[in-house]
Amino acid sequence: MEAIEAIMTRRSVRSFTEEAVTDAELDVVLRAAMAAPSASNERPWRFVVVRDPAAIARLARTTPFTGPLKSAPVAIVVCADRKAAKYPGFWVIDCSAAIENALVAAHATGLGAVWMGVHPIAPFSSAVRRAIGAPRHVAPHSLVALGHPVAAPPRVDRFEPTWVHEGAWGGDAD
Amino acid sequence: MEAIEAIMTRRSVRSFTEEAVTDAELDVVLRAAMAAPSASNERPWRFVVVRDPAAIARLARTTPFTGPLKSAPVAIVVCADRKAAKYPGFWVIDCSAAIENALVAAHATGLGAVWMGVHPIAPFSSAVRRAIGAPRHVAPHSLVALGHPVAAPPRVDRFEPTWVHEGAWGGDAD
Repeated sequence: MEAIEAIMTRRSVRSFTEEAVTDAELDVVLRAAMAAPSASNERPWRFVVVRDPAAIARLARTTPFTGPLKSAPVAIVVCADRKAAKYPGFWVIDCSAAIENALVAAHATGLGAVWMGVHPIAPFSSAVRRAIGAPRHVAPHSLVALGHPVAAPPRVDRFEPTWVHEGAWGGDAD
Repeated sequence: MEAIEAIMTRRSVRSFTEEAVTDAELDVVLRAAMAAPSASNERPWRFVVVRDPAAIARLARTTPFTGPLKSAPVAIVVCADRKAAKYPGFWVIDCSAAIENALVAAHATGLGAVWMGVHPIAPFSSAVRRAIGAPRHVAPHSLVALGHPVAAPPRVDRFEPTWVHEGAWGGDAD
């Protein structure tokens, strides 16, 4: 699938078939995530890949917004290793770029995915950290449900021309 | 360009030719940005597109890491409208996803771009906000330099298999 087409047609997928995600498919998704840029190339991202239904069910209890995990064959917990961070706070941004790459790559590969927020809600972070058994320097960032979509969500147009300012915020300063 | 290829070959481009970025090219980049997912679909992103060399030069004085703006025909200031945010703090993540889409789309279109961090460094944010004349509810997130690359940076492999944990952080819990 063409890159622009993949970006423009990617939608959140919340219901998955029983078809497994292959190691090759997962590899494409994780390689895409790690190809993201990061502050000073710090690459703070770390990934916990969860396939065991009981472990996915434990993750589903960490936040109220994890419904899509019910049918997902794979959950990816995206975390940051704070020891790898060079500039405070940029791990949040870096991991977000990695996740967006992963979502677009998943869609381009015929998979579906949805991004579920964890950081910066402290109780969610603590619950996810416990669920994956991570030490305190590991900051859970987000959950991603991954699988084969039950249905392809329709394309939407989210472009808002009024959100583009020319030259300066207040008007055309050129 | 195929989506996976675009994601895997995108690199930061810091030197640009004098060739202008067309409105059509810019449109592709901004539409890709706005196609990103966001927390509860809040879509907090706003964009200030700067083409005037004097205005770009003013932006270049807002942080120490803006060298690529020197040759860039276009600077995009990615901001969040905090009034649009539904969940505190998620605008940082949402804007990051939008920027990564923009960078991949730029690369797929034959352009080059580099992402320069602003948030969460408060002095940078204030300086950028002043440079674009934005009100206080507008949070500058990042700067993006955009143009035609002088040279295509070589592909790199950033995949680190040890950053993928199976089942749980500490080991294989499946």
